Amino acid sequence: MKFSCTQENLNRGLAIVSHIANKNANLPILGNVLLEAGKAGIRLSATNLEIGISCLVRGKIDEVGKITIPARLFADYINLLPNEKIDFIVKDQELEVACQKSHTKIKGLAADEFPVIPKVDSKKTYQLTTKDVKKAISSTAFAVAFDESRPEISGVYTIFKEEKATLVATDSYRLAEAKADLIGDKKGEESVIVPVRTYQEIIRILEEENESIEVNLNENQIQFTLGDIELVSRVIDGQYPDYTQIIPAEHRTKAVINIADFTKAIKTAALFCKSGINDIDLKLDKEKATITTSNTQVGENESEIEINLEGEPNQIVFNYRYLLDGLANIDSEEVELRLVDSVNPGLLLPAGQEGYFYIIMPIKQ
Amino acid sequence: MKFSCTQENLNRGLAIVSHIANKNANLPILGNVLLEAGKAGIRLSATNLEIGISCLVRGKIDEVGKITIPARLFADYINLLPNEKIDFIVKDQELEVACQKSHTKIKGLAADEFPVIPKVDSKKTYQLTTKDVKKAISSTAFAVAFDESRPEISGVYTIFKEEKATLVATDSYRLAEAKADLIGDKKGEESVIVPVRTYQEIIRILEEENESIEVNLNENQIQFTLGDIELVSRVIDGQYPDYTQIIPAEHRTKAVINIADFTKAIKTAALFCKSGINDIDLKLDKEKATITTSNTQVGENESEIEINLEGEPNQIVFNYRYLLDGLANIDSEEVELRLVDSVNPGLLLPAGQEGYFYIIMPIKQ
Repeated sequence: MKFSCTQENLNRGLAIVSHIANKNANLPILGNVLLEAGKAGIRLSATNLEIGISCLVRGKIDEVGKITIPARLFADYINLLPNEKIDFIVKDQELEVACQKSHTKIKGLAADEFPVIPKVDSKKTYQLTTKDVKKAISSTAFAVAFDESRPEISGVYTIFKEEKATLVATDSYRLAEAKADLIGDKKGEESVIVPVRTYQEIIRILEEENESIEVNLNENQIQFTLGDIELVSRVIDGQYPDYTQIIPAEHRTKAVINIADFTKAIKTAALFCKSGINDIDLKLDKEKATITTSNTQVGENESEIEINLEGEPNQIVFNYRYLLDGLANIDSEEVELRLVDSVNPGLLLPAGQEGYFYIIMPIKQ
Repeated sequence: MKFSCTQENLNRGLAIVSHIANKNANLPILGNVLLEAGKAGIRLSATNLEIGISCLVRGKIDEVGKITIPARLFADYINLLPNEKIDFIVKDQELEVACQKSHTKIKGLAADEFPVIPKVDSKKTYQLTTKDVKKAISSTAFAVAFDESRPEISGVYTIFKEEKATLVATDSYRLAEAKADLIGDKKGEESVIVPVRTYQEIIRILEEENESIEVNLNENQIQFTLGDIELVSRVIDGQYPDYTQIIPAEHRTKAVINIADFTKAIKTAALFCKSGINDIDLKLDKEKATITTSNTQVGENESEIEINLEGEPNQIVFNYRYLLDGLANIDSEEVELRLVDSVNPGLLLPAGQEGYFYIIMPIKQ
């Protein structure tokens, strides 16, 4: 095995794949990156058995072959080299690297011990813009449950249907739903629960230069293709709860509130919450919202902010953390808050926009 | 007690002092900030019993008085208020705060339980520019020992003599010395061991607008005055080791090396060190330095860099961490490395500059 490539190209490839490689006492090879020199270039791959990621790097191949090399060390080392041509040669399971006046030998492990990353070869293919995917993931994934006892809500429920991909996440206290447009040929209806870590990796590797992302599905895996990068992940087994039934169908109060003012008032109120108790009281009147907390330990706080109210005055108690999470993910200047009463969930929407909503369960007094 | 001030002024004052206040189970009042409304304005003070810091905030005093308030809560709360006038009034050991439409009550503790921060009223006064102080502290403090068994080297030895303040720090494996010019009237000779935490606080509160810093000394305390801020700290008891005897008086090799190249080559070599062993081998020849490591576990590395050598070729083994620390703190493009042999300490200087040096003990092979 003998090849050469530029430091810049290899460095980018290693930054993308090496993140997934991690030390594993039972299976040390999972800490390695697989290097395959073939006709098309040098393919770098890493896997943690849940997610596999690979990236093709351009280079000059003098002799095809493959080897695995400690990922962290290799990525750190290549990152420190100057942006010049690097020559590689494998001898006796050892990778020799030469770049200008730096000479290095790194011990590897045989490539045939590296776990096979499955390829999803299905006809269920969808295409989305990277911009839409990024927005849909980041405005939902934060709401998943980190509760191992309910694996089905530890992922993001992803539905491909008609012209849209719909992403849903909940931890049963709050729920976020975002829609993204499908582009290109739309294929039949399909739904899948994607581990949150997988979507976090997608966000990490999304690059400006890739305009679209392709999604392939089968029963057990989901594959994302972004230019020369492929990411394959297992999907979560199980039945996602029927979340549509908790979406409040009507409301008695609709308040439009400036998000920056609302956020500041909630953060101020939160300072006065008793440790471990995150309740804040929200009162909606004709032209103002009043946010209060009282904590006999440290003091009390009351803030008023201007709002635009339609319908009846109302009152509700929320966990301020869920409220702040929702506001932080509404990409708009104003939020529309819809309430029925103090026992039904509240609905938050970006004012005047479609494609996103966030539901919070109230705290019953 | 009744006063008002702007959010901006109070926020700046709290950012400066509240950092020192910390929860303390035995003495809860140490988590509070002392507010004293007097003729000159509102004085904010906090202490951890080792360091006391106070800052005067301008405001309108309607009724003098004092109270202590939980520092973290108060600082966070004021930080979230809009930049407007804030009104304060104390009733029954409770601070009532009103700012626009936000109304808050915070429970306090009686001011007379707050520890007295001593005032250093000595005639031993020195003046330095903030720029010089910042540079001298940051290029030495990193080298102190974090070893409680030798308290005298856990601080920065500070000598005022003739026209200079000299700061020295060592952990017995390496040593840094920086000099700063005294301005204004010079006073007699004096030396003191200042806790590293004290200097870290000084760096934190140095502001662009203060041009000079005043230092007052007595036997047990050191006081720094920066405009309207005063910081008083205990000093460390003990005899600082006579460090001048380890400064190599002569050398056989003098190499001038580009710091960026040298740093990259050391970091590359360091990747190949065996875990827990930080030795790298440095060989200085006529026109090049060769940096090598070998680690039979993962591989080996050899890098060459260009240097400018005067005197004999030489070879030495250093702990790469100490070498990187020194290079990171030399404010110059090139470093001058002076060696005697492989058993005597190496000396690093910013090439062509005075006022700073760094010594590293070699690792004997």
